[in-house]
Amino acid sequence: MNIKMMGRFIAQIVAIEAVFMLPAMAISVIYSEWPAVKAFAVTLALMVAIAGILYAICRKAGKLFGAREGLVCVALSWIVMSLLGALPFVLSGQVTHYVDALFEIVSGFTTTGASVIANVEGLYRGILYWRSFSHWVGGMGVLVFLLAVLPGSKGSGYAMHLLRAESPGPDVGKLVPKMRQTAMILYVIYIALTVINVIFLLFGGMPFLASLCTAFGTAGTGGFGVYNTSLMGVSPYLQNVTTVFMFLFGVNFSCYYLLLLGKLRSVFKDEELRLYIGLAVACVIALVLTIRPLYGTLEETIRHAAFQVSSIITTTGYTTTDFDLWPSFSKVILLILMVVGACAGSTGGGLKCMRVLLLFKGLRRNIRQTLNPQKVMVVRNNGKAVDEKVLANTNAYLAAYVIIVVAATLILSLDGFGLTTNLSAVLATFNNIGPGMELVGPTCTYADYSVLSKLTMILAMLAGRLEIFPILVLFSRSTWKRS
Amino acid sequence: MNIKMMGRFIAQIVAIEAVFMLPAMAISVIYSEWPAVKAFAVTLALMVAIAGILYAICRKAGKLFGAREGLVCVALSWIVMSLLGALPFVLSGQVTHYVDALFEIVSGFTTTGASVIANVEGLYRGILYWRSFSHWVGGMGVLVFLLAVLPGSKGSGYAMHLLRAESPGPDVGKLVPKMRQTAMILYVIYIALTVINVIFLLFGGMPFLASLCTAFGTAGTGGFGVYNTSLMGVSPYLQNVTTVFMFLFGVNFSCYYLLLLGKLRSVFKDEELRLYIGLAVACVIALVLTIRPLYGTLEETIRHAAFQVSSIITTTGYTTTDFDLWPSFSKVILLILMVVGACAGSTGGGLKCMRVLLLFKGLRRNIRQTLNPQKVMVVRNNGKAVDEKVLANTNAYLAAYVIIVVAATLILSLDGFGLTTNLSAVLATFNNIGPGMELVGPTCTYADYSVLSKLTMILAMLAGRLEIFPILVLFSRSTWKRS
Repeated sequence: MNIKMMGRFIAQIVAIEAVFMLPAMAISVIYSEWPAVKAFAVTLALMVAIAGILYAICRKAGKLFGAREGLVCVALSWIVMSLLGALPFVLSGQVTHYVDALFEIVSGFTTTGASVIANVEGLYRGILYWRSFSHWVGGMGVLVFLLAVLPGSKGSGYAMHLLRAESPGPDVGKLVPKMRQTAMILYVIYIALTVINVIFLLFGGMPFLASLCTAFGTAGTGGFGVYNTSLMGVSPYLQNVTTVFMFLFGVNFSCYYLLLLGKLRSVFKDEELRLYIGLAVACVIALVLTIRPLYGTLEETIRHAAFQVSSIITTTGYTTTDFDLWPSFSKVILLILMVVGACAGSTGGGLKCMRVLLLFKGLRRNIRQTLNPQKVMVVRNNGKAVDEKVLANTNAYLAAYVIIVVAATLILSLDGFGLTTNLSAVLATFNNIGPGMELVGPTCTYADYSVLSKLTMILAMLAGRLEIFPILVLFSRSTWKRS
Repeated sequence: MNIKMMGRFIAQIVAIEAVFMLPAMAISVIYSEWPAVKAFAVTLALMVAIAGILYAICRKAGKLFGAREGLVCVALSWIVMSLLGALPFVLSGQVTHYVDALFEIVSGFTTTGASVIANVEGLYRGILYWRSFSHWVGGMGVLVFLLAVLPGSKGSGYAMHLLRAESPGPDVGKLVPKMRQTAMILYVIYIALTVINVIFLLFGGMPFLASLCTAFGTAGTGGFGVYNTSLMGVSPYLQNVTTVFMFLFGVNFSCYYLLLLGKLRSVFKDEELRLYIGLAVACVIALVLTIRPLYGTLEETIRHAAFQVSSIITTTGYTTTDFDLWPSFSKVILLILMVVGACAGSTGGGLKCMRVLLLFKGLRRNIRQTLNPQKVMVVRNNGKAVDEKVLANTNAYLAAYVIIVVAATLILSLDGFGLTTNLSAVLATFNNIGPGMELVGPTCTYADYSVLSKLTMILAMLAGRLEIFPILVLFSRSTWKRS
């Protein structure tokens, strides 16, 4: 394993994180939030020191960099970023325990949006900004950003291993083969969509900082809000704008790239996109039918149903109503959407529509194969044959997914809460959604869980955001063997 | 598709079912339960008529019989058996609605043990016997029985397709290649163990009919009891005997065959058996630690923990205590055991230990493969390489399993009960266990669910017992296409 190269990479990540933290500090300076300013300053000094020392030690790194290094590097980068990013919460005195701060920032970077802070309106504005900005950074991936800004990083193999390990979805092959260019295109689309979102929110009368934070949470499909009641208290216009933008950020970004190239047909024929839209529409209809009696007008019913579907399928986690009060059937629909998640190659989490599609197609092939054992059958997506390796990986992914959900639920149950609370807490963190049900419902926080449970959920959030394998690899003996 | 051959086969199944019903009728005659005698007589007459007509129509069947016919034949046989087997419950007036009776007998044949009848002590003894005997028939598989008694049924290909479709577990290749001989050996072991179980129960002072019925429920890992409180009211000796025998019936029967051949080493080195025993022991210890405060003595704690673990891991479903009152952690352990299930090639349900083993090994291989993409890696079981097809099938099985659990939970949630009730009801029926949690806990019945939910659970029980694919195949278009 090329430890030096990984060290240098992590040094760069820490340096970038420091740069990302500057605007938050500036906001605290503007609003004269001195304890927060001090907290940011100390954190920044520590970051600069760590980055400097790491870089000095690891400057002369070899060129060897494989899949193993890529996976470990991504996992360690995220862990280091989180360990440092949690500091301002504690140093400013706004969060008492470090594990709570870590939970909060991991929830931010992984775009989960699960919180241990009940009174977010009482946070310093700089801290609030940092909390929301972590969603935006984590949504597209900080390593993707690094690849976009670093000058030609040691050939495309290096970049590919990293990008592959950080990007959501079973495959990144759809985009242009040059990795640096890919990363830049992704970020340009990402920034453009975020800016448009901010403009729409400002137009609806939301204050600038609130608009910015809300847009960060939407773009990263995160869900940290600036109000204690998420988006329950804002105007229907602002709710609808957020519904639309959450949904847009759940689309595979390569679709936008294809749109820019004018390839409309291949976008509208994309099977994953069709599943994503079809599923969302079907669920909105099913929800409207079941929750109609709870709301005064049909408009209100549709607005809440569409918002919650868009929020949950994209794994954002904003809420406009307490869906924990909905009937069982509606809640199971939301739980299913939590697991399915958004499109591959978007900022959303969950299994991803593409994987669900492949699982169903693989299963159908398997049934047909059983009926006709002699025929050779291929699974197709958008008309093209899917590599058997991708199918095998998708199945392995499901197995790992189920095992993690079961194991995490078992650990959480040690705290004595009910099954619905624990299972929904695991699904809401592992799929990077945010609010769960019952004791972790839209009006509650995760603060009551024990330290062990919080650490479990921190790992679950990271595993969910990094698509399991980079985190699992850390626990595999063969990772740390000398080859 | 060779419809005539399937018709003839089903005629034979119906005839055998009629023969199996005779002892139940005899018991009703002995106890002068005339409404039950009439119900059995009418059912028997109908069975003879159906079998006769079907046989007459389908007597001249061709020889073509493939995997497709095998799967469809098994599924239809079980459905027809259930439709007819439910009649005595309704005709005797002891169950009001036919769907309830169907639920009860499907629960019997699939060795689930989920009941809609609260007062089983009020049933006619003949009906009670029929209900418990259905477990015994379903445990080993009625088609296996047919293969054992029918003279040389059209070569081994025919028999193999059927046996493969009905037997639990990913593979039946372990046993002797001659199918009829295999089926006979299985039934001899099965009968012998059942008889020993009855003797042990009689020795503990249980009445003859109760011993017989309890042993049927134990052998088939079913769980229908003869007392309203399952085995809560019987002596510790009888509870412990049942603990041991449930566990024995959850072992792969090929292990007993190997024991008979004196191959002790290969039995004790069997990885699935080790997982099965290890998991059970670990869970008993974990349970004892968490439920100790609920019981007076350590002996009582261990007895209840061991009984419930043995009952749930083998998917039997007998209970000696209301585990719904246990703490969350203990209940999640039971839910995990529900899903894992017993060994392949036993009478138990669930995913099966073998599949869990293969899923973990496949996942480990996948992680290592990601780290070393160039190496060719093989998954091994008991030292032998596992066929990639078996691994692919196991993964497809998990995908189908998850999809069915999610879909069934969604349908059940229409009735408005809580998530824990619905999810545990689905897991308890689909894995052929019996009691679930909360409203379907050990002291409750499934009677309150709607007809739609009951039909869903009937399909889930059949899909669980027949290992999903025979039932899924019924819904596949390519099954019904002419080839």
